[in-house]
Amino acid sequence: MTQLLWQKPGVKVDERIQRFLAGEDVILDREFFLFDIQASRAHAEGLQQIGILTADELDGIRRELAALADDFSAGRFVLDEQFEDGHSAIEARLIERLGDTGRRIHTGRSRNDQVLVATRLWLKDRLARVAALCRESAEVALARATAEASLPIPGYTHLQRAMVSSAGMWWAAWAEGFIDDAVRARDTLAWVDANPLGSAAGYGVNLPLARDHTTHALGFGRMQVAATYAQLSRGKFEMAAIDALGAALLDVRRLAWDLSLFTSAEFGFVALPAEYTTGSSIMPNKRNPDVVELMRASYSAVAAARTEIEQLLSLPSGYHRDLQFSKGAIFHAFGRGLGALELLPDLLRNLEWKPERMRAALDPSMYATDLAVDLARQGMPFRDAYKQAADPARWAEGDPEASLAARVSPGAAGDLRLDVLQQRLDALR
Amino acid sequence: MTQLLWQKPGVKVDERIQRFLAGEDVILDREFFLFDIQASRAHAEGLQQIGILTADELDGIRRELAALADDFSAGRFVLDEQFEDGHSAIEARLIERLGDTGRRIHTGRSRNDQVLVATRLWLKDRLARVAALCRESAEVALARATAEASLPIPGYTHLQRAMVSSAGMWWAAWAEGFIDDAVRARDTLAWVDANPLGSAAGYGVNLPLARDHTTHALGFGRMQVAATYAQLSRGKFEMAAIDALGAALLDVRRLAWDLSLFTSAEFGFVALPAEYTTGSSIMPNKRNPDVVELMRASYSAVAAARTEIEQLLSLPSGYHRDLQFSKGAIFHAFGRGLGALELLPDLLRNLEWKPERMRAALDPSMYATDLAVDLARQGMPFRDAYKQAADPARWAEGDPEASLAARVSPGAAGDLRLDVLQQRLDALR
Amino acid sequence: MTQLLWQKPGVKVDERIQRFLAGEDVILDREFFLFDIQASRAHAEGLQQIGILTADELDGIRRELAALADDFSAGRFVLDEQFEDGHSAIEARLIERLGDTGRRIHTGRSRNDQVLVATRLWLKDRLARVAALCRESAEVALARATAEASLPIPGYTHLQRAMVSSAGMWWAAWAEGFIDDAVRARDTLAWVDANPLGSAAGYGVNLPLARDHTTHALGFGRMQVAATYAQLSRGKFEMAAIDALGAALLDVRRLAWDLSLFTSAEFGFVALPAEYTTGSSIMPNKRNPDVVELMRASYSAVAAARTEIEQLLSLPSGYHRDLQFSKGAIFHAFGRGLGALELLPDLLRNLEWKPERMRAALDPSMYATDLAVDLARQGMPFRDAYKQAADPARWAEGDPEASLAARVSPGAAGDLRLDVLQQRLDALR
Amino acid sequence: MTQLLWQKPGVKVDERIQRFLAGEDVILDREFFLFDIQASRAHAEGLQQIGILTADELDGIRRELAALADDFSAGRFVLDEQFEDGHSAIEARLIERLGDTGRRIHTGRSRNDQVLVATRLWLKDRLARVAALCRESAEVALARATAEASLPIPGYTHLQRAMVSSAGMWWAAWAEGFIDDAVRARDTLAWVDANPLGSAAGYGVNLPLARDHTTHALGFGRMQVAATYAQLSRGKFEMAAIDALGAALLDVRRLAWDLSLFTSAEFGFVALPAEYTTGSSIMPNKRNPDVVELMRASYSAVAAARTEIEQLLSLPSGYHRDLQFSKGAIFHAFGRGLGALELLPDLLRNLEWKPERMRAALDPSMYATDLAVDLARQGMPFRDAYKQAADPARWAEGDPEASLAARVSPGAAGDLRLDVLQQRLDALR
Repeated sequence: MTQLLWQKPGVKVDERIQRFLAGEDVILDREFFLFDIQASRAHAEGLQQIGILTADELDGIRRELAALADDFSAGRFVLDEQFEDGHSAIEARLIERLGDTGRRIHTGRSRNDQVLVATRLWLKDRLARVAALCRESAEVALARATAEASLPIPGYTHLQRAMVSSAGMWWAAWAEGFIDDAVRARDTLAWVDANPLGSAAGYGVNLPLARDHTTHALGFGRMQVAATYAQLSRGKFEMAAIDALGAALLDVRRLAWDLSLFTSAEFGFVALPAEYTTGSSIMPNKRNPDVVELMRASYSAVAAARTEIEQLLSLPSGYHRDLQFSKGAIFHAFGRGLGALELLPDLLRNLEWKPERMRAALDPSMYATDLAVDLARQGMPFRDAYKQAADPARWAEGDPEASLAARVSPGAAGDLRLDVLQQRLDALR
Repeated sequence: MTQLLWQKPGVKVDERIQRFLAGEDVILDREFFLFDIQASRAHAEGLQQIGILTADELDGIRRELAALADDFSAGRFVLDEQFEDGHSAIEARLIERLGDTGRRIHTGRSRNDQVLVATRLWLKDRLARVAALCRESAEVALARATAEASLPIPGYTHLQRAMVSSAGMWWAAWAEGFIDDAVRARDTLAWVDANPLGSAAGYGVNLPLARDHTTHALGFGRMQVAATYAQLSRGKFEMAAIDALGAALLDVRRLAWDLSLFTSAEFGFVALPAEYTTGSSIMPNKRNPDVVELMRASYSAVAAARTEIEQLLSLPSGYHRDLQFSKGAIFHAFGRGLGALELLPDLLRNLEWKPERMRAALDPSMYATDLAVDLARQGMPFRDAYKQAADPARWAEGDPEASLAARVSPGAAGDLRLDVLQQRLDALR
Repeated sequence: MTQLLWQKPGVKVDERIQRFLAGEDVILDREFFLFDIQASRAHAEGLQQIGILTADELDGIRRELAALADDFSAGRFVLDEQFEDGHSAIEARLIERLGDTGRRIHTGRSRNDQVLVATRLWLKDRLARVAALCRESAEVALARATAEASLPIPGYTHLQRAMVSSAGMWWAAWAEGFIDDAVRARDTLAWVDANPLGSAAGYGVNLPLARDHTTHALGFGRMQVAATYAQLSRGKFEMAAIDALGAALLDVRRLAWDLSLFTSAEFGFVALPAEYTTGSSIMPNKRNPDVVELMRASYSAVAAARTEIEQLLSLPSGYHRDLQFSKGAIFHAFGRGLGALELLPDLLRNLEWKPERMRAALDPSMYATDLAVDLARQGMPFRDAYKQAADPARWAEGDPEASLAARVSPGAAGDLRLDVLQQRLDALR
Repeated sequence: MTQLLWQKPGVKVDERIQRFLAGEDVILDREFFLFDIQASRAHAEGLQQIGILTADELDGIRRELAALADDFSAGRFVLDEQFEDGHSAIEARLIERLGDTGRRIHTGRSRNDQVLVATRLWLKDRLARVAALCRESAEVALARATAEASLPIPGYTHLQRAMVSSAGMWWAAWAEGFIDDAVRARDTLAWVDANPLGSAAGYGVNLPLARDHTTHALGFGRMQVAATYAQLSRGKFEMAAIDALGAALLDVRRLAWDLSLFTSAEFGFVALPAEYTTGSSIMPNKRNPDVVELMRASYSAVAAARTEIEQLLSLPSGYHRDLQFSKGAIFHAFGRGLGALELLPDLLRNLEWKPERMRAALDPSMYATDLAVDLARQGMPFRDAYKQAADPARWAEGDPEASLAARVSPGAAGDLRLDVLQQRLDALR
């Protein structure tokens, strides 16, 4: 049975209730464990600065934390149900190895700020990955926009053929989208980049904790000042991180939709390498674009995680155990969301257009808008030009390359302004 | 590396992509495994009826499926990443043990209807548990309503003291609530009680599958007739099951809110046994009602799972790999939701009122409504009576028991009509 | 300025705060107004039965309520910001016309149970409409399934061509889907069919209210017994109604997706009458299937409304003003949801297949599954048959009608079992 | 009947379908109308720069747009169902007044980018208001934190009494929270500050539109470059704006929860001015904190709006009519969210503490943590100190002011560091 830090003598323990309380909590804490160790080290350094630990004690703690991190990474230390949670496991290890010194580590600290700081470090790490993957995806898209600037593809609205478009325009759209997503991940990272360690249970402690030191040592951009706010930010900051991830995944979802359509026999505009497809257990003829479908579906985990946390946050201020359930939610969101984003750059690199199929889908009606605008440029009021160009008798096979070259409004095929996007991308590095 | 049923020779396999595709799928399939075996047996019986399997072959399959179920339950067979999924694992085992006979088991079946039927059986099992736990909770509430019919408690609206209420009214409310929830779980179970096995990949097969047999053998209330609809119901039926679970958990959430307030020092109306509380890592004085808080929070997992599936279902008809993500969602919802419901009956049995604290919270203003109605009964128009009773000078210490006895509107303390609730509850057995 | 029923002398009123409190509440109450009048009449009858009103007073109230209903329906009485809400408006009218008799109408009633009963009647009305529209849609689908049983259409999974399917199978799927949706709407109607009138502010009153009479007079299936539960069911019952609506709209969404694809130039399987399409402000060539797109999008309002109420329900028991916001939510959900459902039967009647386009999309690979099963029927183990049938060299142009006729698994094209669906549909009348 | 810009001769129009298509769209467009006029002026200026309009024509358009804005603001021009939408209304007016010049205004523009630019300007305006209201709320909170730095209040975790806290800590928490919310609103405003005008229907036009001019004239921070991305950002940007609003409303919800508890008789820590409360229709004794409850509930509209848009965005790229439903959603979110935020600064200014009630709620156990830390400071290992301090025999009435003064960890009562918060707040101006 799990050892409980706070257990008081003589209180009956109900196994079933303990199981409900513990849930999968200690297993989930594996995600946080190295960050928790890192923060414990900074906390110990702070304790030494204010005289709670001697220099020797601090050395011992540093050494044992490093050893624990190594053991954990190497699989020699397994965080499992014998511990109440990862926090208790660290303390227990230090006590086992260092005796009274270990019994000092929790001075001035609560599991409340301990889990907050570990979560914060974890979120920062994941948001940095989101930003990096969005940047990489934007780079691929931008490179292909440049390379395929004048390849004609049909442009749709309402899934109906609308105007001649280009691969350049399609790629530029995703480039700008993923640049925006990277900016948002970066902004969000900065927003949550505040150190909650030292807020204790939300009311501080009667010790002059070295919070400036821990803020600096852990690489935070600022201290989260108000001790009571640290608790209020739990869930709120997680949701912001999920929102930033979600923005990227929304774009992934729409991109995956395009590819799902474009790889159908009916559209037939795109070929995916065989490794992106799977077969059927009953239909021998199938090659299904499962990767693209699961990328599309990955947004749902992000949305679910957001809902899970949002539902928890109708609470008065102060810590409530409800908040514990926010933990699994962020793992689910980032686990699946980053899983999809990690495949994205290669997918973008590897997809192949089928130019003949795309050209075959350009029908005469798709030049009608160009025609109307041409008439307007020559002086006819646009509303009259629109009516003339609506007459199918005036539609004819067009020259897609010429149509694209003439599309000179900034951001259109004839004037893509990829340099502007490149500059925004460069500024993100 | 996982063996893939549908793998074609010469196609490169990308490890990272395979990992993304597989996810935790095979691990999740452990939940379904026994149901999948059960459905495989019914399918094999059907194949024998239409001459695809001989009686001997069927005997072999039955024997090996029973052995596999035993091995799985006993931990001798572990469903893990060496298999693509649970479905493939069953087929592989039959082939390993029975050779060509095993190679016949998938005749006329797709993994599409295989997962549908396993999911359906699982949902039915879980909905039956929800119904049973709601019934049990309603029974406890009804018994306590009877026993504590005239114990005065303060009644609130807007968290402001409103009128004298009774433990009887409080318990009766939860009794009626959980009866409704049990009814809904039962209705939903009946709604989803349709056999999808035999729909294959959504287009049926050129075999006269014995769907009437499998429907009967698996205990389904009806056949899900249209082969194409079986796929359309994926996710839709899961959401309905989650909705029914959610109705119960919404009530749990509000009940837990009451207990969270009532166990605060400020209200102090309820005492929970010590095993329902936990301590703090930093504050030696704390006994926190964590169980109640996690019960309150459990709705969030249900809401999250619903969101996860809902987000997947914006699709054309036919199977799409997106739907695979509905699997983890139902496990999350029912895992946490049933976890909370399982603790509920005992919690209801064990909570103790603190009658003196409740009596002390009954202040004179709380009789004002009774007074206004009394004046109205004596002939004064209610709007005038209301004004008179609003005058604090007319408020005085009252007799809570007398106030409750006089509250004779049906469903109020003076006429609880618990017999009506008991009849609805009895009808649910 | 609005007249407030409960206003106490000498209390300052802040216009801005009053505006925030009122919101659009009184405007929303227009939806409920006739139901509120109906329930007020039943309440008055009950008051007369217990001696609070004389027979003459009751006559006066009945007459004035009828007149108010007529005035409202005819536009002679406008419910607007001069009233705090619809409930106050009814009382004010009765007082204006009947003096002290009007001042008696609110005896034993709170706005809490007044809004509950109006909401309940409204929800029942809307759920009945949902059920009726689902039934009508299922009828159309079933009729077309019969008429077009053997018209070949391509069957897809993963948006990839899979097997030959039929219009019969496609229609049967929607028929069974909308039958299920009608069943659910009916079950939900029965579940919410409980009379909350007489629960007052959640604690009953010291009068023997004639709740059996009002239950019967208003056509409720049962009394909602526990006075305190009436409040707990607020939001919970609304969510159940939205869930039932949502099930139908989920099917509408998937159906609309099919039509969105099928009306694209690339698929080209379906033609919609011109009145279902719109044009573009800039592109003279466009005919866009906007109706189908907005039908698809209508689910989003249902989901939003559910979220809105769900977010409100993290509360202790008792009435809280938060619950007021559940009102606008149900109007939004049913307004948009019924709007889409109302167009559905005609859309189903009017859509036209383009058989040649569908036939052209049937490629040889789509017979591979039939081939594999044929080999299995002739004795080859299915896994071997699957491999043989996976060889493109074995694929050839097939006869779609023959393929469909041979697809004899129950629920497939060769054995649609529409009679079973017809029986379920008939049972719903 | 509405006049449709794109109507083609001879096409039957179905009234019921038109009503479904139109919905309340034109009414909603009132919110956008002035922004649409502003953007139309910039567009016209651009058209003049590239020679589509003469200087005289531009003058006419500017004059008529200004007149239309005046007429609209003064109520002389009413945007209603006689127009298809606001966009058509502007064009119709210009045509009515200017003839052929008016017929030129739509050259190079689609309603797609027209609604995008109006939405963008509207979102920027609303986000600026969110930021300003959060700043103002933070200012009030900071001022009160300074003024009430050492007023003792009970500090809770799990709604259980935990440690002595202070009004200073409570206010500082909200100050830091609303500073964060203001930062986020500002960051989000910058993120969406991109001009979509000139992207036309998503594929640009064959005119060198003066997008740099319109970007500058409308005060945008940058051009949204890729024409196709402008459409992809629809809904995505709306969601980001709602997320920022939601962060603030999450804090409002938790603050309102505190006030809902604190104004209960049981806590009794806070008094609200009478204008923040309302009465009951049946209970003469009630003064309910409805304002606080509706502020708490306002988050639900924000959550609902987010869900509504999120559900729409599972689409391939390109415009789809589904996106139209994102319009009502943002009005609902910001309407209700800003409604709550607008009341916040005054509420914070006006709430009054009841110091005696708070002092009475400080019980001896609440000094146990201070005691444990004191022992640890004196050299006892914290785990041993924790055990000693857990002994109720060691608890005694304490001096709350002394306890607060000794709580010197940065961000706690003894070292609030309000200057740091003030600096962040000043930087936001």
